This record gives sequence, C-alpha cells and structure tokens, in this order.
Amino acid sequence: MSRLIYADNAATTRLDPAAFEAMKPFLVDEYGNTSQPYAFARLPKKALRDARETIASCIGASPEEIFFTSGGTESDNWAIKGSALSNTCKYATVTSAFEHHAVLHPCEALERLGYPVAYMWPSQEGYITAEILKKYITSQTYLTSVMFANNEIGTVQPIKELCDVAHENGSLFHTDAVQAVGHISINVHNLGVDMLSASAHKFNGPKGVGFLYIRNGIEILPYSDGGAQESGLRAGTENIAGIVGMAVALKNNCDALEENVKHVRGLESKLVDMLDNTGIQYTRNGGADRLPGLVSLSFPGIEGEAILHRLDLNGICVSTGSACNSKSTEVSHVLQAIRLEDSYAKGTIRISLGKANTEDEVEAIFNALVKIFRI
Amino acid sequence: MSRLIYADNAATTRLDPAAFEAMKPFLVDEYGNTSQPYAFARLPKKALRDARETIASCIGASPEEIFFTSGGTESDNWAIKGSALSNTCKYATVTSAFEHHAVLHPCEALERLGYPVAYMWPSQEGYITAEILKKYITSQTYLTSVMFANNEIGTVQPIKELCDVAHENGSLFHTDAVQAVGHISINVHNLGVDMLSASAHKFNGPKGVGFLYIRNGIEILPYSDGGAQESGLRAGTENIAGIVGMAVALKNNCDALEENVKHVRGLESKLVDMLDNTGIQYTRNGGADRLPGLVSLSFPGIEGEAILHRLDLNGICVSTGSACNSKSTEVSHVLQAIRLEDSYAKGTIRISLGKANTEDEVEAIFNALVKIFRI
Repeated sequence: MSRLIYADNAATTRLDPAAFEAMKPFLVDEYGNTSQPYAFARLPKKALRDARETIASCIGASPEEIFFTSGGTESDNWAIKGSALSNTCKYATVTSAFEHHAVLHPCEALERLGYPVAYMWPSQEGYITAEILKKYITSQTYLTSVMFANNEIGTVQPIKELCDVAHENGSLFHTDAVQAVGHISINVHNLGVDMLSASAHKFNGPKGVGFLYIRNGIEILPYSDGGAQESGLRAGTENIAGIVGMAVALKNNCDALEENVKHVRGLESKLVDMLDNTGIQYTRNGGADRLPGLVSLSFPGIEGEAILHRLDLNGICVSTGSACNSKSTEVSHVLQAIRLEDSYAKGTIRISLGKANTEDEVEAIFNALVKIFRI
Repeated sequence: MSRLIYADNAATTRLDPAAFEAMKPFLVDEYGNTSQPYAFARLPKKALRDARETIASCIGASPEEIFFTSGGTESDNWAIKGSALSNTCKYATVTSAFEHHAVLHPCEALERLGYPVAYMWPSQEGYITAEILKKYITSQTYLTSVMFANNEIGTVQPIKELCDVAHENGSLFHTDAVQAVGHISINVHNLGVDMLSASAHKFNGPKGVGFLYIRNGIEILPYSDGGAQESGLRAGTENIAGIVGMAVALKNNCDALEENVKHVRGLESKLVDMLDNTGIQYTRNGGADRLPGLVSLSFPGIEGEAILHRLDLNGICVSTGSACNSKSTEVSHVLQAIRLEDSYAKGTIRISLGKANTEDEVEAIFNALVKIFRI
C-alpha cells in the first residue's frame, strides 16, 4: 500500500502527540484513584481539576459546567434522556431529521416511552433555520436539540438564533457539537446553549472520552448512578489519562484555531478549484456556511462505495457517509433529509481534511479521483 | 515523602506495562475508526475482535457475550436498569445491602420509577447465603444482583448457589464482579450467571474501560443509543486502546492467577500473623472465604481516617472504606450491613495487597501500624 493519506477527519482524528505525552504519566505512574484522600491521589486530582478548567475556558464555560463522559454518544444520550426524564411539566422534544444517530436513536427511545418527538426537515442547503424551528416548537417542548455542524455535509447551523427561539418558547436547547468543537470558535455563554456535547477523538484527543457542557442551574438526571464523581451526576472512576489528553488536544486546537481554519480552508478550495477545471460532473453538498475541511461531493452515475474502494487502493481514506453507518450502501438519512437526487446521493463521498493534511496530499487525492473518472 | 507503598489495590491498580505497550499503537498510529470499511481500519477492527475473544476466554464466555463499556459503574447501571426496563412481566429486584454504590444507586433510581427493590442483609460474617436469598426472592423477581466479592471486606459470595436459587425462581442473576475478575478464577458458564460486570482498572488495566458479560439470549435494553457498535446495544466509537489494554491485563492476570494468589495470600498471612503477635487489639472483618490480599482490619478507639493519614505520611496508601465514599467519615454502609460494633467500625482500614507488593512492603506497613499504636 502506498503512503497513507488520511482524509477522514470527521470520522476520527490522529491523537495530538502532546496529548499522548500528557496522558502517559497518568497511564503509567500516577495511577492513584482521585476518590482517595492520600497524597498519591493528589496529582491525578489536580490534573482532573486543571483539565476541567482548560476545557471550560476553551468553550467559554465555567469548570463546574463541564461533565466528563465516555464520548459524544454518551453526552448526547445523557442530554436527551436525562432532561426528558427529569422534566415533569413538559414532554415534547424537537430535533432535526439529519442529526447523528447518537441523537436520533435516543429520541426514538424516548418515543417508545411515550414522549413525542418532532423531526424537523432541514432546507435543501442543509440548514435548520429559526423559521423552520418556529413551525415545530410548541409550548409543550421542553428540549430542542440541533447539531452544531452536520457530520456528513458539514453545514454549520445558526445555533444562536435557534437557541433564542427555543428560549422564547420556554424550551431548553442542546447541541451535538461533536463535529464543531476544536474546529470552529464556540462560546457557550454567547450562544446561550443549555447543553453541548463533545467527543475528544474528533479534535485530536483520545477515543473513549468526551464531555457534556451543562449550564449551571439546568436540571438533569444522572447518567450513571454510583460514586460521587462528576458532582454525583456521572458516577465511575475517572478516565484521567483520557481526560488529560482531551484537554491538551482541545487547547492546542483552540490556540491554533485561526491558523488551522485558514490552512484547511486553503486545502479545501484547492481541491474544489482543481475539480472544477476537469469538467467532471459533480455537486458539492451543503450551503456556504460549512465546517472547514469537510467536502461532501456527489458524482452521479457511480457508487460512493466504488469511489471509496478505489481511493483506498491508493492509500487514501475518505468516507461515503457517517462513520457509524458505513456498512450500509443505502442513501444516508442526511442526504435523504436534504432531498438530494438519488443518482447523486448514491455517488457521494465525504472528504474531511484536517490540520495535518498537506497540499501534496490534496493533489494526490485529486489525481486519484480524476483517474477514477477518466477510465 | 518516603518511597510509595501502594496497598490500595481494591481502589485501583497499576497498569500492567505490557498492557501499556499494547495500547500505544492504538493511541499513536492506528487511529482508524472501526466503523469504516477502508484498509486503515483493519488493524483496530482486528484488535477489537481479538480483545473480545481474549476476555471471553478468560471468563469462559463466548466473544459475542462480551460488551465493552466505560467501566464497572456503567456495566452495573446497564445490567440493572437495562434488564428492568426491558422486562414487561415482572418488576421486582433483589440485591444486597452491602453492594457497591454502582449497584445500590441504580436500584434506588429504579425505586423512584416505581420498581420495588429488596435489599438483603448479609450475615455478620459478610455473606449472602442461598438461605438468605430464598427469604427475599419472589415470583415477581426478574433480577437478582449480588456482588461477587465485597469491595470493603473482601468476602466472596456463593455465586453458583445464589444463581441456582435465582433461576429456580425464574429470576435473572447479575453479579458485580469488579473486585473479583482477574483475581480469582471465574467461569460464567459453570456459575450460570446471566450478567457479570467488570472494570479494567481493578485488574491492572487502564481506567475508563470495562465490560459487561451478557449471556446469549438475555433481553436487555441498549445502554446508549446511536451507532451500531457492540451489536447495537452500546453505541459510541470504541475506546480501542483501552479495550486492548484491558484484554492484555486480564490475560496476564489470569495466566498467572495461581501464582499471584499464592503470593498475595502469603503476604496477607504474614501481615496478620505479625499483627497477632503484637497484642494490639483488632478484628479482621469478613469470614474465611475472602479475596486474596484484601485485609479489612478494625481497631477500636481510633479513627480509620487517622490511621490512613499516619500511614500516608509514611508513603503507604490504604483505604478507610470504599474508594467512592472516602470523603465521608461516616461508618460505611458495608460495615453497617455486617453490624460491626460502632467503635470497631470507625477504626476500620482496608489494606488491599496486589501482585506487585513485596514482603518488605508488608513489613513496612506492619512497622508503621505498630508505631501508631505504640504512641
């Protein structure tokens, strides 16, 4: 196999080497349990406190509003189920039809318990606008959950506006920000969101760890019951190494955010400009407000799976849909939600460029793509 | 501070260096998402499959019966809540009053939802016998949950007998085996248990990962909804490094089980024999069938916290109760459940020796203890 060109950064990212170095002591020597009062537990306790502060400062939150979880899926499940079951007055949820399964499936679980859920259809450009939300939200809505950025087409939603509509209607607002955190600037205070989910491995942190931001004063049931960790809301001995790695990765990404965005936007433009000059028939999915680096392309008359396979033979990793349903060749629920024509939808690939990708790699991806269409 | 003597292995254990080495590639280079079909995801996929097989073989299960979780607390929460909410005929749970909070608190959460839970009191020696269970179990009991070994006093419960009683009464049987897995021989097939919880960091694996054994055919609700991971029952991108580390640690502990048990039992006897010769007044808690290395000692007329602090000044880590409630100086629920006299209960420490402890360390612990009582 030729050298690996990893262009699937929306599925997962490479661990920041500095994050790995920061994790090592807590994997190897500093293994004390933070629940213990002796001196040997001091360093992990401090690391936990520091990580919480770092993460809070990266998204404009207070440290006590950050709750460590095992990843984005847990954060989403907690936000959606935990707020539904703690609310005794209202019972309805509003979400979008093109959320990640980690939001959709918990909502379906709520429906099975008798809680009604409304699934908003996005515009064909891939946005849930304030106008769309106004049509779905009612006085019975206790939770509105709209993703920050779509994982397949990269469209960044107007979170502040949606949040305002939710609050005007007495609803809490949660956002699955798994694709956005560490990649675009986020300030929970300015946005006004009540809950925000994140996953470390999407921003160069380790797998198996994430967090849920829960605004001070929000009532939510614990996600797991047991020990007193995470203010009694998420029991279980903390994954200190993972948490430390997550904090380092997020801080590094946030510190270099402008630079990373500029670099990745440059690569993205280069790829699209080159493609435009070939005459190959394709569309790029999603409107103008998109995540840096996420390029969803649809080529009519070819299967996305076939493109993925051919790129794979060249050592290039891309995706056909979201990482979690790539076993299926059905048109993804996201592409269905934006009403993409079937012949285009079936020929869709997602190239997600990250800070580590280079111009040479983009050229190699371009050349490999062109070869597929020239045969 | 003098050299660290870590004798709190029931709280957490040092990561097996071989486990760390096995984790490294999946933290650093092999970061592919197992949900993706390209070649770069092949190695993590294989590692996941291998780890599942290894863990299954260590406890006599089939690989498809092993479900990876974020730790023991999640496993317990899942087993208890997931089976309650999936059962439509019966509604009662029977557990013991001296379970870990990761079992007790989920049971209390069920009670708040209207599911009745009976809390069995153990014998003063620290056992739930078949006779005790027979008094509590009814035809309405869908789940019996009794821990494999108590985390504060180390008593190993007669799991096979309890399991037989549960099954005779049409109840499922779950065991929180967090303290037992990797430390005593366990074969789920021979025992007949339906569900078994384990946590990697208790057997020299990393923090933030564990597993739940779910016998083939048992109906249980998913713990988290989202992607298709873990047969659709526990969604979320897998913590591959953690899972790989857990498998290596468990296999190494199981391969050397006899040798480790012999070593740790030797250290334990040495400590108790030396103490017996001092004339210091104390009792050792729990009956004869105990976890290797777990020594719960009660000294009347002194606070356990004071002993812990004095040992800590000598670089010795022990515990006063379970790791999760050590902030509290109240008599632990475990010591209350075995009706330990208050003056003894308050002066209780838990020394938990592991495979890495040495005779010299045991002598140092003994000398430090003696110094406390000689002043």
